[in-house]
Amino acid sequence: MEPTPEWAFDAAEHAAMGEALEEARRASAAGDVPVGAVVLGPDGAVVARSGNRREADQDPTAHAELLALRAASRALGSWRLDGCTLFVTLEPCAMCAAACVHARLDRVIWGAPDPKAGFAGSVGNLLEDPRLGRRVAWRGGLRAPEASALLERFFANLRDRG
Amino acid sequence: MEPTPEWAFDAAEHAAMGEALEEARRASAAGDVPVGAVVLGPDGAVVARSGNRREADQDPTAHAELLALRAASRALGSWRLDGCTLFVTLEPCAMCAAACVHARLDRVIWGAPDPKAGFAGSVGNLLEDPRLGRRVAWRGGLRAPEASALLERFFANLRDRG
Repeated sequence: MEPTPEWAFDAAEHAAMGEALEEARRASAAGDVPVGAVVLGPDGAVVARSGNRREADQDPTAHAELLALRAASRALGSWRLDGCTLFVTLEPCAMCAAACVHARLDRVIWGAPDPKAGFAGSVGNLLEDPRLGRRVAWRGGLRAPEASALLERFFANLRDRG
Repeated sequence: MEPTPEWAFDAAEHAAMGEALEEARRASAAGDVPVGAVVLGPDGAVVARSGNRREADQDPTAHAELLALRAASRALGSWRLDGCTLFVTLEPCAMCAAACVHARLDRVIWGAPDPKAGFAGSVGNLLEDPRLGRRVAWRGGLRAPEASALLERFFANLRDRG
């Protein structure tokens, strides 16, 4: 899996990932692993945003992507998110990649690769798995150094405290 | 994938699936595809139950399993559901199978196989995929004829109306 080079993303995509990074920072301030996500509607406006809240909510499904998809469906009044794009600071896991397909998203753009658990190009790819009956376009690597730095700092702090 | 034969399930498992079937019936009465789930705690008591609510809630992630896992975490005060068992009337999809692994469930017992989208033995198996770093024990086929009949009746009604 080769991440898309940084220069291939446009200014609007760069800005949308900036909002996702802001959500990631808020998540870590609350004690959760810093991952953030935003959903842009068909017109390019932000319709939903969330950070990872697994610890805050004690909910095993409260990954940033799942919460952002649910919030986008509430905002748009439909579980079908055709025309929408999800930006997430870390490559989605299997659960979240499959949720993106269920939601009928147009596109997923992720930041840092997850070589251990990423199911959108790294260890697998459910965004374009024919067994799911539908594919979601994706690119990875947007603002990856910033997304990775947040994660590294969070885990370094945990180690220092532990 | 060979379903476990009916005689290999005990009376308590048969009864737990009966409660999941009750949730499935409620889901179809509300216009959702009839799938139901219950979570039993380490002591064997029901801690959470839900039907599929994708249409009712307009939420692409509102599958019965995901809602039951979230409700179980709320009931037990933790995202870690060690010692718990999920009963679901239909073989879980990729999203729900991965969620079961994230939740650290002990076991998943499903009813009817899903030859098109089932990721717990049929088209794939994320419950025992080494890439997820953890495995969840599972058996399938418990009260499958009842679970399938509910689904067949629901889709036959849709066709008659359509």
